Amino acid sequence: MDNVDIFYSLWAGAMVFGMQCGFAMLCAGSLRQKNAKNIMLQNILDACGGAIGFFLCGYAFAFGSNSNSFIGSTRDLFCIQGLTNGTDLIDFFFQFAFAASCATIVAGTIAERCKMFAYFSYAFALTAFVYPIVVHAVWNKEGFLSTANEDPFLGVGMIDFAGSGVVHMTGGMCALLGAIVLGPRIGRFADENDNALNEEATSSFQPHSVALQCLGTFILWFGWYGFNAGSTLGISGENYGHVAALAAVNTTMSGAGGAVSSMILDSIMGYMMDGEVHYDLTMAMNGSLAGLVGVTGACAVVEPWAGLVIGLVSGCIYCLGSSLLVKLKIDDSVDGVPVHLFAGMWGCIATGLFAEPMRTKLAYGNEVEHFGWFYSWGRGSGDANLLLCEICGILFIVAWTCATMAPFFFMLNFFGLFRIDPLEEMVGMDISRHRGPAYQHQLDESDKDIHKEAVDLLNQSRSIHRADSIRRRNSNDNGNGNGNGNSIRKGNGNVYGNTINNPAKDELDLSGKNPQDDVVHNVDGNV
Amino acid sequence: MDNVDIFYSLWAGAMVFGMQCGFAMLCAGSLRQKNAKNIMLQNILDACGGAIGFFLCGYAFAFGSNSNSFIGSTRDLFCIQGLTNGTDLIDFFFQFAFAASCATIVAGTIAERCKMFAYFSYAFALTAFVYPIVVHAVWNKEGFLSTANEDPFLGVGMIDFAGSGVVHMTGGMCALLGAIVLGPRIGRFADENDNALNEEATSSFQPHSVALQCLGTFILWFGWYGFNAGSTLGISGENYGHVAALAAVNTTMSGAGGAVSSMILDSIMGYMMDGEVHYDLTMAMNGSLAGLVGVTGACAVVEPWAGLVIGLVSGCIYCLGSSLLVKLKIDDSVDGVPVHLFAGMWGCIATGLFAEPMRTKLAYGNEVEHFGWFYSWGRGSGDANLLLCEICGILFIVAWTCATMAPFFFMLNFFGLFRIDPLEEMVGMDISRHRGPAYQHQLDESDKDIHKEAVDLLNQSRSIHRADSIRRRNSNDNGNGNGNGNSIRKGNGNVYGNTINNPAKDELDLSGKNPQDDVVHNVDGNV
Amino acid sequence: MDNVDIFYSLWAGAMVFGMQCGFAMLCAGSLRQKNAKNIMLQNILDACGGAIGFFLCGYAFAFGSNSNSFIGSTRDLFCIQGLTNGTDLIDFFFQFAFAASCATIVAGTIAERCKMFAYFSYAFALTAFVYPIVVHAVWNKEGFLSTANEDPFLGVGMIDFAGSGVVHMTGGMCALLGAIVLGPRIGRFADENDNALNEEATSSFQPHSVALQCLGTFILWFGWYGFNAGSTLGISGENYGHVAALAAVNTTMSGAGGAVSSMILDSIMGYMMDGEVHYDLTMAMNGSLAGLVGVTGACAVVEPWAGLVIGLVSGCIYCLGSSLLVKLKIDDSVDGVPVHLFAGMWGCIATGLFAEPMRTKLAYGNEVEHFGWFYSWGRGSGDANLLLCEICGILFIVAWTCATMAPFFFMLNFFGLFRIDPLEEMVGMDISRHRGPAYQHQLDESDKDIHKEAVDLLNQSRSIHRADSIRRRNSNDNGNGNGNGNSIRKGNGNVYGNTINNPAKDELDLSGKNPQDDVVHNVDGNV
Repeated sequence: MDNVDIFYSLWAGAMVFGMQCGFAMLCAGSLRQKNAKNIMLQNILDACGGAIGFFLCGYAFAFGSNSNSFIGSTRDLFCIQGLTNGTDLIDFFFQFAFAASCATIVAGTIAERCKMFAYFSYAFALTAFVYPIVVHAVWNKEGFLSTANEDPFLGVGMIDFAGSGVVHMTGGMCALLGAIVLGPRIGRFADENDNALNEEATSSFQPHSVALQCLGTFILWFGWYGFNAGSTLGISGENYGHVAALAAVNTTMSGAGGAVSSMILDSIMGYMMDGEVHYDLTMAMNGSLAGLVGVTGACAVVEPWAGLVIGLVSGCIYCLGSSLLVKLKIDDSVDGVPVHLFAGMWGCIATGLFAEPMRTKLAYGNEVEHFGWFYSWGRGSGDANLLLCEICGILFIVAWTCATMAPFFFMLNFFGLFRIDPLEEMVGMDISRHRGPAYQHQLDESDKDIHKEAVDLLNQSRSIHRADSIRRRNSNDNGNGNGNGNSIRKGNGNVYGNTINNPAKDELDLSGKNPQDDVVHNVDGNV
Repeated sequence: MDNVDIFYSLWAGAMVFGMQCGFAMLCAGSLRQKNAKNIMLQNILDACGGAIGFFLCGYAFAFGSNSNSFIGSTRDLFCIQGLTNGTDLIDFFFQFAFAASCATIVAGTIAERCKMFAYFSYAFALTAFVYPIVVHAVWNKEGFLSTANEDPFLGVGMIDFAGSGVVHMTGGMCALLGAIVLGPRIGRFADENDNALNEEATSSFQPHSVALQCLGTFILWFGWYGFNAGSTLGISGENYGHVAALAAVNTTMSGAGGAVSSMILDSIMGYMMDGEVHYDLTMAMNGSLAGLVGVTGACAVVEPWAGLVIGLVSGCIYCLGSSLLVKLKIDDSVDGVPVHLFAGMWGCIATGLFAEPMRTKLAYGNEVEHFGWFYSWGRGSGDANLLLCEICGILFIVAWTCATMAPFFFMLNFFGLFRIDPLEEMVGMDISRHRGPAYQHQLDESDKDIHKEAVDLLNQSRSIHRADSIRRRNSNDNGNGNGNGNSIRKGNGNVYGNTINNPAKDELDLSGKNPQDDVVHNVDGNV
Repeated sequence: MDNVDIFYSLWAGAMVFGMQCGFAMLCAGSLRQKNAKNIMLQNILDACGGAIGFFLCGYAFAFGSNSNSFIGSTRDLFCIQGLTNGTDLIDFFFQFAFAASCATIVAGTIAERCKMFAYFSYAFALTAFVYPIVVHAVWNKEGFLSTANEDPFLGVGMIDFAGSGVVHMTGGMCALLGAIVLGPRIGRFADENDNALNEEATSSFQPHSVALQCLGTFILWFGWYGFNAGSTLGISGENYGHVAALAAVNTTMSGAGGAVSSMILDSIMGYMMDGEVHYDLTMAMNGSLAGLVGVTGACAVVEPWAGLVIGLVSGCIYCLGSSLLVKLKIDDSVDGVPVHLFAGMWGCIATGLFAEPMRTKLAYGNEVEHFGWFYSWGRGSGDANLLLCEICGILFIVAWTCATMAPFFFMLNFFGLFRIDPLEEMVGMDISRHRGPAYQHQLDESDKDIHKEAVDLLNQSRSIHRADSIRRRNSNDNGNGNGNGNSIRKGNGNVYGNTINNPAKDELDLSGKNPQDDVVHNVDGNV
C-alpha cells in the first residue's frame, strides 16, 4: 500500500503548494494597488527560495537524526541526497510545502515597506533554520516536545496535528516582530508631524481588490483540506482514514464558525459605534482563515461540535486582535498577525481543552493517557498535562522565534537594509522597483482619442456595409441591383473620403493600406 | 480498502467545495461592480451557513432513517453525533459540499436587490430543510423515488447520478421563484414610468469583469470532476472505477458540447439580427456550465457520444432559455435559471432517453431492467418506465420547491424583508451595506497629484545619480575625479533645492528627513 | 488495484485540465485589455474543440495500432467506441487534457491579431492530427522513437517522460511558425512608416493585469504536479510511487530554479543597462514556467539536484530567448516560444545529459542500458546514445511541425483568413468581435453624477436618522420625548423637501415611490 500513501501525500502536498496561490491573491488584494507586483513577487520567491533553502539544509535540520534533541544533522539529508525511495521523496515535497507556507505568512504583514534584500534574507533564514528547529522540536521523534518521543514531555508531549503552533504561530510571531521593527507605513497612523490621524484620513489603506482577496481566501480554504487531512502523512494505515475524515470535517466546521462569528461580532461593534448595520466581507474572510488556523492543531483529536466552537472563538479572537493591533499602532498590512499568531495560539490552547479521548487515541495511539482538560474535568480528574504541554509549546515557539528573528530584524534595520526609502514608499514598490504598475486598465488621454476614433470608424464602416447589403437585397428584389449598388458604393466612398481627410487618419492607417478597403472587404468574409 | 474510499471522497469533496470559489468568481464577475462585495459575502456565507445548517439538522433530515419515506429523523445524526467512523464522517463532508452548492445557485440570480437577512433565511431554510427532503426522496434508500428502494417506483426509480435534478433543479427552481417575487432590478427592463427600455439603455447591466467570470467557469468545470465522478461515493468497489471514469469522460464531452453549441447558436442568432458575426464569451461560458449541469444526472449511464449530444442540446437550451427569461421580463442577474433549472430538467429527461443498458447495469446493479427510451425503442419495446420516473422526479422537485419556497419568499416580501431599499439599490450594496467599493483601482484627483510628484522626484533623483556615477567613472578615467565630482554634487544640490521649495514638498517629506539624502544614499545600496 | 489507478489518473487528468484555467488567466493578464475576452474565448474553445477533435479521431491516431509506425488507425478508437472499461476511458480523459494543453500553448503567442476562424482551424488540426502523430511516434509502443518499441531507436529510444518535446515543443514550434507568418502586432516594433520604435514607444504592450498573470502561473504550477507525476499513468505498479514522487520533487526544484535564475539574470542585465536594480515579476513567473517545461521530460529520471540545475538553466534560456525574439522582431505576445519551445528543447537535451542510471531503470525498466551522457562520461564510456535519441526527437518534432503547420499557416494567410483587419486590431477584438470590453470598472460621466447624487442622498438620510435617534434618546432621558421628536421630524421634512426639488430627483425616484419614506422606514429595520 506504499504507493497509495505516496499518492495521498502527493495530492496533499500539491494542495498545500496551491495555497501559495491563495496567499499571493489574498495579500495582493489586501494591499494598495501600487505594491501589488511587489507582494506577488515575494510570494513566488517564497515558494522558490523556500524550495531551495529547504532542499539545501532545512529538511536535514528538521528531520535528521542526532544525539541531541535540538537540531537534525544526518549528513545525507543535506541536498536530500539520501532520499532514494518514493516515501521519503514525497515526504520532502509535503514538508517543503509547509515550510513555504510558513515563510509566506510573514510577507503580507510587513508588505509595502520592506526591501527585497531583507525579504530574501529572512525568507531563507526562516525556511532553512528557524522553522526547521521548531519542526524538529515538535514533530521529529527526537524533539523534546514531540508526542512520538520515547519519553514525551509531561507524559504526553505537544499535540499539534497540522501546525497551529509549528507553522502558523512561527510565521505569525515572525511577522509581528518584523512589523514592530519596521514601523507602520507612512500615513497609516500619523501624518508627517506625528499627529495621530483619524479613520477617514487612513481610508486610502483599503484593499485594492476585494475580488482577489476573496479568491485567495477560497483557494486557501480549499488547500487547507490538504494541509490538515494530509498531515496524517499517509492513508493506508489503520485509523488513518478516520483521522483524515475527521480533520476534513473539523476544518469545515471551524472555517464556517470563524467567518460567521467574526462578521457578526464586527457588525455588532459597528452598530454600537455608528448605528448602521454593515456586513464586512473582509471580516468574514479573515475570520474564516482564523477559524482554519485555529483548528489546524486540533483537527484530528476533537469532535465536530468542538471544531465549530473552536472556529467561533477564533473568529472573535481575530476580530478583537485586529482592533488591538490598530490600538497599539502596529501596522499589519493584511491582518496576518491576528489570523496566524493569535488564532494559532488559541488553536494550541484549544487542543489542550477539547482533545477527546477516543479520537486522540485513534490519532496518536492507545498509549496516550492525557486528554483535553474539559474531558479530565468532566471525569473529575483535573489532569491538565496536555494543556500544560500546549502552553509550553506556545512559550517555546514564541521564545525561539524572538531569540532568533528579533536580533535578525534589528540588525537589518540598523544597517538600513530593512525599510525602503520613503520616496519609494510614496511612489509604491511597483513603479520604483518592479518596472511599472500592475495594471494597465486605462488608456492614456492621447491613446483614448485614437482608440475612440478607431471605434467610430469601425462602426461607421459596418453600418455602411449593413445599409449596403440591405439595399442590395432590396434592389435584387426590385431587379435593379446594379444601379442601386453603384450609388451605394459612391456613398461609401464619400464617407470614407471624409474620414481620410481627418487629421487622425495617419495614426490609424498603420498598415500602409487603405483601411476602408480592408474593412469593406473584410466585413463580408471575416469569421 | 475503506481508507482509499475515504481518500477518494475527501478528494472529491474538496473539489466540490472548491466550486464555491468558482460560483463566487462567476457571480461577482457577472454583476455590476457596485455589488461585487455583496455577492462574494453571500457566497462565503453559503458555505459557512450551509455547513452549520447541514451539521445541525440537514444531514439528519436527508440521510436519517425513518418509518416514513418523507424525512429522515435518526436522532443521533443531528449535530452528526453518531458519525464515529471515517466513512460516515467523510460522507457528511461530501454531502455538505453538495448542499452548499445548491444554496449558492440561488445567490446569483436574485443578486443586486436582495436583503442580507432574506439571504440568510432562505440559505438556512434551503440547506437545512428543503434540499434535504429532495435528497431523502431520490438518494436515500427509503426515498420513494430512490433506485435503491426495495420496491422502486415503476420498477426502477429516478436515476439522477450526481444531481441534475436533486441539486441543480432544486437550486434553479428556488432561484426562479425568488427572481419572480423580487422583480427585476431598477432600470433592467423599464424606466421609472414603466416604459420598456431598449437594449442600449440596459447595457449598463453588463458583467463588470469577464476575467472573473472566466476564472469562475474554469474553476467550476474543474470542480465538476469531483462533483460527478465523486458521486460514486467510493472507488474500491467493483465497477466503481469504470463508473468514475465514464463520469469524467461524459463530463468533459458535455461541457465541451455545451460551450460550442451555445456560442454558435448565439452567433447565428446575432448574425440574423444585425448582420455581424460576433462570438460571445459569456454564451460559451454559460453554455459549458449548462452542458455540465445537463450531464450531471446521466454521466454514469450514458455513452460518451451521448454525453456530447446532451451537451450540445444543453447549450441550445441555455441560449434559448436565456432569451426567454428576457422576453418574460424575469431578471436573472447571472443567468442561473437557464443554466441550472432548464439544463437540469433536460438532464433528467436525457437520462430517461439515453441510459445505456450495459453502463446502467454497471452503475446501478444487474437487477435494473428499465433503460433509456431510445434503447427500448431500438429493441422495439417502447418501455418508457425510466423516462416516466425522470419526469415524475422533475414534477416532484418543482412541486416541492414551489410548495415550500414560494410561500417563504412571499412572506419575506410581504413583510418588506426581501428587497432592499431603491436608494440602496441605486447606490449599490457595497457602499450602502459593506463599507465601500470592492476596488480601489484609481487614485483620487488629489492623491494623483501627490503621486505624480513623487514619481517625478524619484526619476529626477535617479537620473542625477546616474549622471553622477557616469561622470565619476569618466573623471576617474581622466584622473580628475575629485574636482568633477564636487561640481556634480553642487548641481545636485540645486536641483533638489528647487524641489524643496516646491509647495508639495511638505506632503512628500513625511519621514521628517531630507528626501534627497535618502535617495542618493539609497540608490547605491538598495537591493 | 485497477480502481486506484483510475482514481490516480482521474486526479491527474483533472489537474491537467485545470491548467487550462491557468493558461487562460496567464494569457489574458499578459495581453492588452482590449483583447482579454478574445484570448479567454480561445482558451475555452481549446478545451472544448480539443475534446471534440480528440474524441473524433485524435485519440485513435495517437494510440491506435497499425502495421506502420506513423499513425494509429484502430477503427473502434474513433469516437472512442471501443473504450468499454474504466482504465481505457480514464486514459482518454488524461490524454485529452494533454492535447488541449498543446493547443492552448499556441493561442497566447499569436494573440491580438489572429482571426477566430483561423484559430478554430489550427486548434482542430493540431489536436486532431499534428499532435497525435507526435504522440504516436514517441509514446505509443509502435512509435519509431518510443522507448517501449520492441527494437528501440539506438537501443534506447527517446525518453520524454511527460512531454517537454511531445507537448511543449510541438505547441511552441507551432506558435513560432504562427508568429512568423502573422507578423508583429501594429506598433509593436515599427510605426506606420516602418521606422523602428524605441522601447518607450512600445510600452503600451505591457500586460494589462499582472494579478491575472500571477494567478495563471500559480495555477499552472499547481496543475503541473498532475501533468508530470500523473504521467506514470497509474500508481499501483511496482516503482510507480517512486517515479511519481521523484517527478513531484523535480518539478518543484526546477520551477524554483527557473524563477530565481531568470529573475536574477534579468536584474543583472537591467543593472548593466541603466544602473538601477529592478526585480521583474514577469521574468520570475515566466522563468518558473520555463523551469517546469524544462524538467517535464526528465522529471522521472534525474536526481533532485539535477532538477534544480535544469531549472536554473531553463530560466536563463527563457530570459535570453525572450530578448532574442525581440531582436529578431518576432512578436510573441506572451513569451510562449521561449517558455515552451526553447525550454522544451533544453528539457530534451537535459534528459540526455542528466538521466541517472538507477532512477532511469526504476522508471523505464531494467533493460534500459543507455543513460545520461554525464554519467557515461563519469564512467569513462562516452556512450551518447540517449543524447542522440533526444536530439533526433527534437529534429523530428521540429521537422514534422514545420512540414504540416507552416504550409497550413501560409495557406490561411494567403487567402486572407489568418490576420484580422488592421482597424479591428486597433480597436481590439473585444469590441470588434466580442460585443464590448472585458471590464466595466468605470461609470460613464453621466452615470457618475447620478451615482454620486444617490450616495449623497443615502448619506444624508442616514445622518438625519442618526441625529434623529440620538436626539430621541436624549429627549427620552430628559423626559421631553414627544416635543423634541416632533421638531426633528419637521427638520427631516425640510431636508427631504429640498432633495425632492432637486432636478436629479426624477432619475433617482425610479420606484415611483417617495424615496425618503423608504429610507427612513428602512434604516431602522434593514438587516
